[in-house]
Amino acid sequence: MFSMQPIGYVRSPFRVTREIPKGLGAKHDAEGVLEILPEFAEGLADIEGFSHLYVIWGFHRAEGFDLTATPPADGGRPHGVFATRSPRRPNPIGLTTVELLGRDGASLRVKGVDMLDGTPILDIKPYLSSIPAEQLRRGWLAEAEVRSRTASAPGPASE
Amino acid sequence: MFSMQPIGYVRSPFRVTREIPKGLGAKHDAEGVLEILPEFAEGLADIEGFSHLYVIWGFHRAEGFDLTATPPADGGRPHGVFATRSPRRPNPIGLTTVELLGRDGASLRVKGVDMLDGTPILDIKPYLSSIPAEQLRRGWLAEAEVRSRTASAPGPASE
Repeated sequence: MFSMQPIGYVRSPFRVTREIPKGLGAKHDAEGVLEILPEFAEGLADIEGFSHLYVIWGFHRAEGFDLTATPPADGGRPHGVFATRSPRRPNPIGLTTVELLGRDGASLRVKGVDMLDGTPILDIKPYLSSIPAEQLRRGWLAEAEVRSRTASAPGPASE
Repeated sequence: MFSMQPIGYVRSPFRVTREIPKGLGAKHDAEGVLEILPEFAEGLADIEGFSHLYVIWGFHRAEGFDLTATPPADGGRPHGVFATRSPRRPNPIGLTTVELLGRDGASLRVKGVDMLDGTPILDIKPYLSSIPAEQLRRGWLAEAEVRSRTASAPGPASE
């Protein structure tokens, strides 16, 4: 058993879950601030050298979990929760990659937030590597994208 | 305060910390198994469609934390803990991207483990996106790589 406590809180434009862009083609370019608590600020030294960060945070509004999720990106089709980003997980941990725009003391201005305002931050790590696009398979999400394009096409696909 | 419990455990070739490749140019191609507990196995449905996964895990051997870390990759130079992957973090959370090689029931065979054998797994998520290499800045780590190349060059750099 691990006990985790917030190292800070997210300031985000999203006050309720439905305001957060979701589903296929959702743009995650909202700007926000990671406000780190004064007692942890020393841990931010040299972070401004990194263009992107991992933010690990807590789904503080989620209660309980389901092993099967029905993500909006796939029109309600069921998938195992570990193959989705559903908030109702056995451990309510969220993970977001953000772009670091700047630092003001213990506040990090970032782009790409998809958390609610007030979300507790558990950890920050430098983002270091990328998987080349040609080596990446994206499972049911890629299939959902194909279905979505086919459904919205007015006639035969011309691609 | 969040309480987290393991959803499974890592089987890895590494029994002690010093066996894990670290520092500049360390190769993370070790294979291992993510053994998910039977009561969470249903949450793995459809995961085999993804080539890469995020594994969020607990540093179960770490005790306490430091706000300043001295990563081996940078010859003992100090950096804020949130600008490093040091295990001695305010919340002992580890994050590893692995390649999914195959699935046998509730066991996922993966490549790229850098955890100790027996490490508790807290969450698994699909890896979906990459930051293009040309948009990525890697802070002190990039500087350490330059220093390392310069130090090991026998004469003028010939690229």
